[in-house]
Amino acid sequence: MRKRSMPLGKVYSLLEPGPVVLLSTAHQGKNNVMTMSWHTMMDFEPPLLGCVVSARNFSFTALRSTRQCVLNIPTREIAAQVVQCGNVSGRALDKFAAFGLMPMPASMVDAPLIAQCYASLECRAVDMRLVNRYNFFILEVVKAWIVSKCSNPQTLHHRGHGNFMIAGEAVKFPSKMK
Amino acid sequence: MRKRSMPLGKVYSLLEPGPVVLLSTAHQGKNNVMTMSWHTMMDFEPPLLGCVVSARNFSFTALRSTRQCVLNIPTREIAAQVVQCGNVSGRALDKFAAFGLMPMPASMVDAPLIAQCYASLECRAVDMRLVNRYNFFILEVVKAWIVSKCSNPQTLHHRGHGNFMIAGEAVKFPSKMK
Repeated sequence: MRKRSMPLGKVYSLLEPGPVVLLSTAHQGKNNVMTMSWHTMMDFEPPLLGCVVSARNFSFTALRSTRQCVLNIPTREIAAQVVQCGNVSGRALDKFAAFGLMPMPASMVDAPLIAQCYASLECRAVDMRLVNRYNFFILEVVKAWIVSKCSNPQTLHHRGHGNFMIAGEAVKFPSKMK
Repeated sequence: MRKRSMPLGKVYSLLEPGPVVLLSTAHQGKNNVMTMSWHTMMDFEPPLLGCVVSARNFSFTALRSTRQCVLNIPTREIAAQVVQCGNVSGRALDKFAAFGLMPMPASMVDAPLIAQCYASLECRAVDMRLVNRYNFFILEVVKAWIVSKCSNPQTLHHRGHGNFMIAGEAVKFPSKMK
């Protein structure tokens, strides 16, 4: 999927609806990817977000050490791979190879973009104060990519135990909200 | 809508998909409610969540002072009221009365449940370390309510500027994920 650069001020519109994301890292010469749903926007611009990466996850050490990652937003076309990424650890498996995910070089961080995702956000950890207590990382999005044509992406939203809701109907209301 | 008590260990399944919520507070004898999308789960049980409430919002002072609130999860039936709550400040207006939202007493906190919402989470602020820097509150859910029958709630998910996605098709995959 051909992607274009996205203005950083619009990044919130991708994460605010609460999609499952694939968090990718590179550490000690190995790419890894994990499925994550516990994230929130924290500021518009520069875009800040907070996310929980469990200390039990292999990605935790990579993120804490490198302070870099990419949040990739998948759609229903790769739902099966998203679930597979959540079911196994990167300790024993190269998930990119095992599940046919294609890594692509990022421009600002040393972690791979995932070609099959409709959007990818290159991030740096900027505040790790709550990592010890809550495994909570505050990330700044430093570069954002999105496919050229994507008006109503069928993102995945996890309700627990493999139950997902697929993004449905789009509706618009007159609003002063950003 | 008749509601039943929900086990606290299941609360994450309501918030993890990223719905818009209505945050209600009571302060100095006045109820208030605001629309909020910037929240994330932070732990399963007891359920912890983090959320951003801007210092510009009237609800900020109420939440910071009382350390109590209710997160109510609306569905598309009251989408118009959700948008209205996001468009005006509670400084000048009783939004419950103005928009026909029905407050009901909570059991563990001094803030109103909203009768028309399909789920309501009574919360206490347990960590305010990041409030000054990020307006970020960490809340513990101390009591949860949900309507008796609700298998695939049509929650609202905000994409910015009044554009919402309505929760769509439900799908299930074999998964080891909680």
